[in-house]
Amino acid sequence: MHKVDVEMGRDLYEMNRKIASRLRSLFDEKDIVAIDFMGSIGSGKTLVIEKLIELLKDKRIGVIVGDVTGDDDYKRIKKYGVQVVNINTGKECHLDAHLIEHAVENLNLDDIQILFMENIGNLVCPADFELGSHKRGVVISVTEGDDMVRKHPLIFQIADFIVINKIDLIPYMEIDMDVILKDIQAIAPKKVFLTNARSGEGIRELAEWLVG
Amino acid sequence: MHKVDVEMGRDLYEMNRKIASRLRSLFDEKDIVAIDFMGSIGSGKTLVIEKLIELLKDKRIGVIVGDVTGDDDYKRIKKYGVQVVNINTGKECHLDAHLIEHAVENLNLDDIQILFMENIGNLVCPADFELGSHKRGVVISVTEGDDMVRKHPLIFQIADFIVINKIDLIPYMEIDMDVILKDIQAIAPKKVFLTNARSGEGIRELAEWLVG
Repeated sequence: MHKVDVEMGRDLYEMNRKIASRLRSLFDEKDIVAIDFMGSIGSGKTLVIEKLIELLKDKRIGVIVGDVTGDDDYKRIKKYGVQVVNINTGKECHLDAHLIEHAVENLNLDDIQILFMENIGNLVCPADFELGSHKRGVVISVTEGDDMVRKHPLIFQIADFIVINKIDLIPYMEIDMDVILKDIQAIAPKKVFLTNARSGEGIRELAEWLVG
Repeated sequence: MHKVDVEMGRDLYEMNRKIASRLRSLFDEKDIVAIDFMGSIGSGKTLVIEKLIELLKDKRIGVIVGDVTGDDDYKRIKKYGVQVVNINTGKECHLDAHLIEHAVENLNLDDIQILFMENIGNLVCPADFELGSHKRGVVISVTEGDDMVRKHPLIFQIADFIVINKIDLIPYMEIDMDVILKDIQAIAPKKVFLTNARSGEGIRELAEWLVG
């Protein structure tokens, strides 16, 4: 059972990589910067994207929103008047390049400079599936505890940047920020942003780094 | 690609169900109550189990701890002196019955009355894989926002009970508890426990319901 699963997996990964590569070429051709936001549910991915849209209002933005079901996040993005497509994966725990290829059919790419892709909320599955983005980020929240980096090393290792969100809640949590930062240094030394997406703290630095 | 994936999936689910059924018979034969804890990372699954162990110290307890990698949770449980086995799933986002069957080989089942199984932290994959438990629960944290029930209906629907944890943090969050409770009523009307695992609040009610 496990053997078959692994072999099937290899084919799926290879096919995904090919489609992701095709997508990246398409984005390059259209001068689009594409960014994939990964992270656990409730870490604040949607709010980070909302605040980025507010800050980058002189840019033409598109958003692909992934959720297992429903359109809650889609509606939150829609109210900013940007182009947005909702993907429901049903039982799948990650977006994949094939789904993104269908999603972009519903976007006018000639009118997009920055494309945000919000992945399904968890720290396991999305790591294995590139979406053709130029940068991949993981959004974590201090409320998740200080052990999530060493517990999910892969997703941080394949990411280009890490957003540590909800820093306003640190005083109410029993967490050690040094542990998180040391784990990042040791396991996945990537660019780190400390944010409170609710107040907007830290989002400008992120926006400048992403599209500056 | 998708078609093959679906057919493969059906076989895997069917095989898992058979092994889970075998496990449940084994637990019944040994008079063991087995409970599967699901929930996102950082929701507090491990701490809830720790507090249950403290409260149920007159019972003989065993724990199977699932994590993608590492042994952080295993060490936390180990210090209570109960039987505990660590499962690292590598890239898999859920435990399955086959993994549990191997894990129980390393437990002395004749000396266990209650078996806690801590699943991999996310609200998508674990739903599809029964582990032979008598009760399945989802632990969510108020820090994850008030939309997680309607965003992940399946896992709540297949669960027997729902633990809403970290209720001490409600005053610092922009969440509406009524939304969560109404969603549960509408989508998955299960037994709900409100807990603050850090202080132990609400854990006694949970313990009594689980093994009373």
